[in-house]
Parts: sequence; C-alpha cells; structure tokens
Amino acid sequence: MSDTPQQARPAANRTVFFVSDGTGITAETFGHSVLTQFDLKFKQIRLPFIDTLEKAHEAVRKINDAYTAEGNRPIVFSTLVKTDLAGVVFKSRGLHMDLIQTFVSPLEQELGVKSTHTIGRSHNITDSEEYKNRIEAINFSLAHDDGQSNKNLSTADVILVGVSRSGKTPTTLYLAMQYGIKAANYPLIPDDFERGKLPSALPEFKSKIFGLSIAPERLSEIRNERRPGSKYASLENCRYEVNEAELMMKREGIRWLSSTAKSIEEISTTILQEIKSDVRIY
Amino acid sequence: MSDTPQQARPAANRTVFFVSDGTGITAETFGHSVLTQFDLKFKQIRLPFIDTLEKAHEAVRKINDAYTAEGNRPIVFSTLVKTDLAGVVFKSRGLHMDLIQTFVSPLEQELGVKSTHTIGRSHNITDSEEYKNRIEAINFSLAHDDGQSNKNLSTADVILVGVSRSGKTPTTLYLAMQYGIKAANYPLIPDDFERGKLPSALPEFKSKIFGLSIAPERLSEIRNERRPGSKYASLENCRYEVNEAELMMKREGIRWLSSTAKSIEEISTTILQEIKSDVRIY
Repeated sequence: MSDTPQQARPAANRTVFFVSDGTGITAETFGHSVLTQFDLKFKQIRLPFIDTLEKAHEAVRKINDAYTAEGNRPIVFSTLVKTDLAGVVFKSRGLHMDLIQTFVSPLEQELGVKSTHTIGRSHNITDSEEYKNRIEAINFSLAHDDGQSNKNLSTADVILVGVSRSGKTPTTLYLAMQYGIKAANYPLIPDDFERGKLPSALPEFKSKIFGLSIAPERLSEIRNERRPGSKYASLENCRYEVNEAELMMKREGIRWLSSTAKSIEEISTTILQEIKSDVRIY
Repeated sequence: MSDTPQQARPAANRTVFFVSDGTGITAETFGHSVLTQFDLKFKQIRLPFIDTLEKAHEAVRKINDAYTAEGNRPIVFSTLVKTDLAGVVFKSRGLHMDLIQTFVSPLEQELGVKSTHTIGRSHNITDSEEYKNRIEAINFSLAHDDGQSNKNLSTADVILVGVSRSGKTPTTLYLAMQYGIKAANYPLIPDDFERGKLPSALPEFKSKIFGLSIAPERLSEIRNERRPGSKYASLENCRYEVNEAELMMKREGIRWLSSTAKSIEEISTTILQEIKSDVRIY
C-alpha cells in the first residue's frame, strides 16, 4: 500500500513489527494508516505465519532484540487470533497494538455471541466463491486488456475507456484482484477520433462504460518515460488526444473522472460507487 | 479481500459501515478481519471520501436509517482522521470502532510527538516513489507474463516458474500491485521436460527463481474449467506435468511451494519472505 512522500521524514530509530498468524497483510495495511499520522520514518518488519508457540517465542526474541539494539520500545501491530499465541507475543518488551482483541471484545458484547477464534481468513479461502470470483475476474481483465478481445463483453461488470496511459490497465487489475469485478478496458485512439465514434464493440454496452481522463501535461510526462521524444509523447499530441477523448465521452454521455492526481485505489473506489457496488452482503 | 465460506452463516440482521475520508480500503480490510471472527452474515456498506461536514452528516443519516430499519445498532468501522469529521460521525446511533484514534493516542504518548492529522494516505500518493514503483512493477509484470519477453530479466526481483495454471500470473500481479515487486513468470511446458532443461533465458538468473507447484487433481479441475475434456486438462497429463516440473525444480535447486490450498496473498507473502523483502524502511 502506498504512503505519503517520505524524503523529509526524520528516522524514529524505532522498529515496527507486524505480527500475524496469517499473511500479516491486514496488520501491515492498517499499521501503515496509523503510522502515516506521524512524520517519522520507521523500520518495519513483517512476521507472518506465526501459528505455533515456537514461532511466537521466536517473534518475541526478534522484538526484544530490536529493543536492545535501539533502546526504544518496538511498536507491535498484531492480528493474532489464538489467545495462547497472542499471550506469548504480548509478553515481549514492545508496545502492543492488538487489532483483534481491541475490537472483538466490544463486538462480542454487542452481538451477544462469542467469537470463533479461528485463524481468521487463512483457512479454506481458496474454496470460497468470493476467491474464485477474484481469480476469474483477474483472468477476464487480462484477456480484455487494451481492447484485446470483444468476446463475452456482456459479462463484464465495467468497461473502462480512455487514451493510452491514462491508468486503465492498473485500475482494471485492481478492481479484479481486490473486488472480483470483471473489468475490460479499451483505448481511445486517433482512429476513433477521426471516425468520431466509440470502438465498434462498445455502444451496446454504454451503460457500463466508465471513462478515465488525465491532464495532458501529466500524460506527456508518463508517455515520455516510455517513448522519449516521440510524437506520441509530445505535449501537443497529448493535448489533442485528451481533448478529443473528453469531447467524445461528453457526446456519448459517458461518465468519466480525471486520473491525474488519483491512485489506482482512489480511481477504483470511485468507479465502485458509480456502478453501485459499494453494498455487499457477506 | 477474501473471506471464509459463508454459506452456513446466519444473518446478523445488522449493517456494518466502513467510513473513511479516503477510499475506505483500510477500514474495510480490517473490519473484515474482525467480522470473520463471528459466524454471522452482515450487510456491509462502504462510505468512502467522507471529507466534508456535509458528507459526514449524510453518513450519520445513513447509519441512523439502518438502525431504524433493522432495530439493531449498526457497527461503524471508521478511519476518519480529521477530528471535526470524526466528531460528527461519532454522534450517530452506531457502535463506533475508531481505528485511528484508538491507536494514535497511545502512539503519540509513546513517541512523544503529536500526530499530523492529515487525511492519511490520500494526498500526493501518486507523486511518491513507492507509488511509481508499484505502477512500474505492474507494467513489468504484464510485459513479462507467461514468458512473453526475455528483456530486462536482470531487473526482475523474482521470476516465478511452474506448469500452466499453477497460479503464477495472479501472484506476479499481486506482488507488483501490493509491494512494487517486479515479477516475471515463465511456464514450464512439455517441451522443457523433453529437453530436460529450464527455458533458455532462465539459468543465469537462478538465484531469483521461485517455483509454484500444485496437486495434479486440483490442476486438472482448474484446467477443465478452461478446456473441458481436453488432453491438456486430463488428470493423467496433469500428473505427468506436475511430476516433471517438480523433478526439474529439485534437480535445478529451485525453491518452490505448493499453491494448492493457498491464496495469492499467502503465496505472495511466502515468496516475500524467501526473497528477504519483509523488512522495509519508510
């Protein structure tokens, strides 16, 4: 996951550990959000798959070693579900941020049921419908990248359009990987602008088309990294393409957003809202 | 993110909200981890980009409406950094799980500095080195998918090998998207087994090759979804390919793991540990 620019941050001289009986991705994603509230640089160590007492003791040794080396209490974000493992790790000399227990206890009270204390999401994931949908969506998005295929567009959840290098491919892959959304993408190219029409496979699916635009200056920068000095990358050509693409999207009534200063996560979240995919039942 | 199988879960008749001034991805990922500790089904609603007082009041209305409709307190996971926005949302009739303040306050005390209370990761992300690396890694992984290109393999962080449909492509994309890891992947195919050698571009990069294997039964299942009844998908052929691939990896001294019951997150985390990428400084 991304982060604000770090160049100017002073070092905290302190290690942060992400400890989990699974991948540690939740602990790490969440810990980053909290740590970005501080203008400090931290050394960060992921300790995933801590699922036996032996590994828990080994984690404690690593945390205590960091304390000894730095003279500062390490910060420990953990998502250990099993109480016996958590009990071992919590005896380390770190400052413990227990993500599960902090919130599970009040929820148990509110819901009037006990939590299951299983090892979270790491069991049988690959058998779940949701996981299979994600893998299927990744395959779909790859097969329908850059207008490669017109097949099965009727099963797409969303079709992204935009000029080359406006951010379509990373966004479709993110939507697929994170949310199981089947996303195709089509480039809008000078041929389309001359014809004054969308690529021929698209008009019948207009209700699920979503556009990405981008500031011509930024586009020129990105294209110059790929093909320095080319006409393709020139500011003049980028201005032409972006202008034509925006005119076409307006004419066709296609919703669009500017990807210029947005991360793929932000673009994806906005698209999910547009296609009304922000309500789910688990 | 994935979840344990839900078929058997009774409905909690209760709505969960993920409220954020950014994408809400952190609140949602984390909230899922906590909710999977309960054998209940929840209706889940993401409320991203709550970054004005007006939107905060609108969020409160939605939360209160859910209370009225269901007769149960909604559960609210929030990552609102600005205290004025958080102050509004916390007045709703939900049960509030405040991910930021819960952990930021003890951290302020421990570190002896105040937090910046910026809107987390959503500003300037796209200018950061880390973000650029992720986008570059996605492009690299796409260009080097399925042995498409031998160019620039020296700049790859990892090269995955394995039989067709063993999970290489989703894993390389996940490594790129989540961690900015440049991951190429090469299929091991019957031609390679007959020659008894790795694809010719690979031997010089052996130190960064990592293998995926898979149970032949599972492989046959996956391949049958794509090409039902084919020789390619037959159990006999899958047994042959998997056996040959494992023999080759053993002979060449290539580390490998079985992807059979592992999610792409678990495979990726294991590979990161192997390539010693689990320590980072931010």
